[in-house]
Amino acid sequence: MRKICVITLAVFFFAGCGGPEQKKNKELTKFQAWPANIEVRTCPGSFSREPGARKIRLEGLSGEILSAQVVVNCSSELEGLSGEISDLSGERGNVIPAESARVRYGAYLPVDETMTLTADPLLEKETVDVPANQAQSVWLTLKIPAETAPGNYSGRFAISESGGQAEVFDLAVEVLPAALPAPRQWSFYLNIWQDPSGVARAHKVKPWSEEHWALLKLYASNYAEHGMDVITAGIVYDPWESQSGYPYETTVEWKYPGEFTRGTADKFTWDFTVFDRYVQLMTEAGVDRKIDCFSMVKGPGSNKHADIRYLDTRSGRYRDIKITLGDPAWKEIWTVFLPRLREHLKEKGWYGKAFLAFDEKPRDDMRSIYDFLLSVAPDFKVSIAGGYPGDERKWSDEVILHVNELLDERNLAAIAPLIRKMRSEGRYISFYTACEPYYPNVFLFSRLREARLLPWLAWKYGLSGYLRWAVDAFPEDIWNQPNYKWHSGDMYFVYPGENGPVDGMRWELFRQGLEDYEALRIAWDMAQKAGREDLLDKLKAAVEEGTIIDSCSWIPFVGEARAKVNEVIRELGKKV
Amino acid sequence: MRKICVITLAVFFFAGCGGPEQKKNKELTKFQAWPANIEVRTCPGSFSREPGARKIRLEGLSGEILSAQVVVNCSSELEGLSGEISDLSGERGNVIPAESARVRYGAYLPVDETMTLTADPLLEKETVDVPANQAQSVWLTLKIPAETAPGNYSGRFAISESGGQAEVFDLAVEVLPAALPAPRQWSFYLNIWQDPSGVARAHKVKPWSEEHWALLKLYASNYAEHGMDVITAGIVYDPWESQSGYPYETTVEWKYPGEFTRGTADKFTWDFTVFDRYVQLMTEAGVDRKIDCFSMVKGPGSNKHADIRYLDTRSGRYRDIKITLGDPAWKEIWTVFLPRLREHLKEKGWYGKAFLAFDEKPRDDMRSIYDFLLSVAPDFKVSIAGGYPGDERKWSDEVILHVNELLDERNLAAIAPLIRKMRSEGRYISFYTACEPYYPNVFLFSRLREARLLPWLAWKYGLSGYLRWAVDAFPEDIWNQPNYKWHSGDMYFVYPGENGPVDGMRWELFRQGLEDYEALRIAWDMAQKAGREDLLDKLKAAVEEGTIIDSCSWIPFVGEARAKVNEVIRELGKKV
Repeated sequence: MRKICVITLAVFFFAGCGGPEQKKNKELTKFQAWPANIEVRTCPGSFSREPGARKIRLEGLSGEILSAQVVVNCSSELEGLSGEISDLSGERGNVIPAESARVRYGAYLPVDETMTLTADPLLEKETVDVPANQAQSVWLTLKIPAETAPGNYSGRFAISESGGQAEVFDLAVEVLPAALPAPRQWSFYLNIWQDPSGVARAHKVKPWSEEHWALLKLYASNYAEHGMDVITAGIVYDPWESQSGYPYETTVEWKYPGEFTRGTADKFTWDFTVFDRYVQLMTEAGVDRKIDCFSMVKGPGSNKHADIRYLDTRSGRYRDIKITLGDPAWKEIWTVFLPRLREHLKEKGWYGKAFLAFDEKPRDDMRSIYDFLLSVAPDFKVSIAGGYPGDERKWSDEVILHVNELLDERNLAAIAPLIRKMRSEGRYISFYTACEPYYPNVFLFSRLREARLLPWLAWKYGLSGYLRWAVDAFPEDIWNQPNYKWHSGDMYFVYPGENGPVDGMRWELFRQGLEDYEALRIAWDMAQKAGREDLLDKLKAAVEEGTIIDSCSWIPFVGEARAKVNEVIRELGKKV
Repeated sequence: MRKICVITLAVFFFAGCGGPEQKKNKELTKFQAWPANIEVRTCPGSFSREPGARKIRLEGLSGEILSAQVVVNCSSELEGLSGEISDLSGERGNVIPAESARVRYGAYLPVDETMTLTADPLLEKETVDVPANQAQSVWLTLKIPAETAPGNYSGRFAISESGGQAEVFDLAVEVLPAALPAPRQWSFYLNIWQDPSGVARAHKVKPWSEEHWALLKLYASNYAEHGMDVITAGIVYDPWESQSGYPYETTVEWKYPGEFTRGTADKFTWDFTVFDRYVQLMTEAGVDRKIDCFSMVKGPGSNKHADIRYLDTRSGRYRDIKITLGDPAWKEIWTVFLPRLREHLKEKGWYGKAFLAFDEKPRDDMRSIYDFLLSVAPDFKVSIAGGYPGDERKWSDEVILHVNELLDERNLAAIAPLIRKMRSEGRYISFYTACEPYYPNVFLFSRLREARLLPWLAWKYGLSGYLRWAVDAFPEDIWNQPNYKWHSGDMYFVYPGENGPVDGMRWELFRQGLEDYEALRIAWDMAQKAGREDLLDKLKAAVEEGTIIDSCSWIPFVGEARAKVNEVIRELGKKV
């Protein structure tokens, strides 16, 4: 253990114009620790402009989960570093107990796009060892208990090396006079496709084994706590043709006696056991607004692949039927299956929230699918990611616009009426980011600010919410190679930890953005009820500020826009 | 001195799915060193996927300046680290002497946009000390002498700690069968506005003192070696209204006896001493294609400010005339000054390359300026950054398009005829990046690949070259705060070192892009003369590859596109 550290951060302190003369400050001193904005990712070379700051201030609604970050750096190795918070005391004996908080430690992943170690996974452990000169994020997650009385609370957040130096931060928490509902009641619509196969793979368990189900329960709980609304269910084998590098398991087992031949689709049977258990598990966890069924045609893109894998019950082996969208076998099989699917969903009481889901299929493909559905199963709801809304014959019940469609002003003007129409009819219209754009997005090399910004964009453009293609499609060796063929981080928000999912910083920032959105909604309702146009204008300004995508000058943090929302709640909320 | 180091880079090597169990490899070993792509910026947390690689390969034309990078990291401090190259031996006793190379060391700057230390300045010094766990870039710059015979040369690049461990890299250099002309003869048109006041300020010398002139000579030489073509001359005081944080000195001294009153502009006199010396100095250094005279109206943007500062020869003090573009005083003064400026330029033989230059002035302002010029001095050439090309009454002799105008496909289609027309008439039409876009650009947080890519964009869009607003508008304390109100790095490519300009990595990468452009031109000529459509197609494909701005998948390095250009030169070049 080394308790005396040397500041060498001063490598960049040159003696003015005289030029690049290194001035090493070799006086013996302690480790440095400073509060850092959660919207800025900690890097091994992170520094502070105010290394002596010792105040951390958080403000939020009762029930809200808030994050703070302290960065620690030392010129020699630190062993057994930990962060610990005290109870937070309020007025009249009110307390936010220390147990409301979790302290986690940012771990570094080697990211190929930048060839630098990049912090994202938040490890929950007793202590962490910190290599010399490698800035370490100590991440505080505070859940303000739902029943907490509004007011100011204060306590301490201490960072200490085992048996050694401690740096103590004043932690001030203001609980605003409003309550954030539980995630299940959030108005924001969040749809991030799950890949149960990814969980099985990363944890090295057999798909749909009891070990797998136990893990899926932990993941489901994590997703529910992060505001997830939609259950992603494969109804055929590998609907995305292994775009994550691996096949995606179906939850519906297709069975047929022997080798399928045309005209005999009525011999298919379907086992919904896994589907039912998965939907049930997600629903119980709190992810229960919608079920996306993937997919009558493989996505994404203009391929017309629609192969079906089935269990040949005679041989006990799997077989594949090569099918192209729209060909006679495709029509025959789906003509038989869709009524069976409908029947099953109705039996379970899930039909009202089930959607036939499609990923970035072009207009012509979607039109032929609509034609088919109109003749065979016109009542099924349809969800399409990629923007084609359908037409007067059959409208999509859900449209997901690519963010680029919003950021292009001319295009936005063209689609604004569609957005208003769909929202007024109670249909989902949300937006997504995927492998594009480069910015804003939630890659491992994206700034964390961007993850928080995305939900604000949904508010700005009047959308239901946000969609992404993957929350847990883990690559083979995520800790050593977080990149597969997509950008690093594109395929997941969480990590496969020893005890289930490990949150990424991006995932926490994204949740903060969702909570911001709900706070905005609450503040908006308050201002409307109070007839306060001035405060509505203030909220509009906050949204403009919070959604700046580019600028010549400094881009404000989203947290600054949130502070304006809080001002409205502070003024109009119910004082206790 | 510590010669035995411990690898702790293994912080990210987790034991597979079992989760985030840190596995520290504590066996004693040496520092790590690995060759790294010059298009990837070294960060404190840089890592390698091939830490054992020991081969560096460079290829280029005789006369070309090439760069390579080795990154060093160690878990304990390294003292007195240095890189040294040997002579490079070719066939038949040919040699590239070691003196053709410079070894420099990347210094870290604290960059506020990312709050992380960021390498850019290349310090030329004997050795460098490397803090533990802080990756250090050792940068090799090799100028292949102009007379070098084509062929393969080989030698060694050794990285060693003073008196300790050494890691030796095989350095193979292939000199291709073609010669790169000296920068003065490069076809690429490069216009990066200089700020002589910035040099005076950063080096703490009096503007236009002999010390200042001595420094300016060093800067001019650096610019010439980096392909600069244009002399930036302020013809009024502070033509950019201190947008860099400081006024921009004029090179023309305006004098008037007393306080100016309307109708007496003929009493103005102008002292061109500084202007002449500056133009002469830049010309002698090799920056001699054009002179931009700033400006009849302050830029950028829609302000109509056109104040004139002058020396009141009666009081010996400076006075300001508040003038708005187009008002009677403006017309009166410029009606007198422009003929005087023309006369002086003609006397010096510079009139043919002098332009009245404007920065991002809107269409209506430019129209009123054109109207005025048509009546007063229609022969003056005009340069406008920001895209308004003039009209049939008076065309700009130079148009500089913002890169966003090129990247928008619809807009590009609209301006393509203008590009072709101006090029065919020998008028300059180039493009620029400034505080926007976020990407691609040359900020301190931009990937270095972007700096190299910019010249390729000029080729792709058939443009004369590239322009930027600042090469040396240094902020007050650049080593500790490289950011002023624009993004970090926006205002400069070089740094004010003890002995004059210190190159930034961005500046070296940008020059490599210019050299790529010239190699492309040489290869193109060869393939055309040889009637090799297949090779022209190959070059077109190389340009497409080298100019990828965004992509879902991995973005190739520009160097890979350059390798294809080299293949053409290797096949068609004159063998010795």
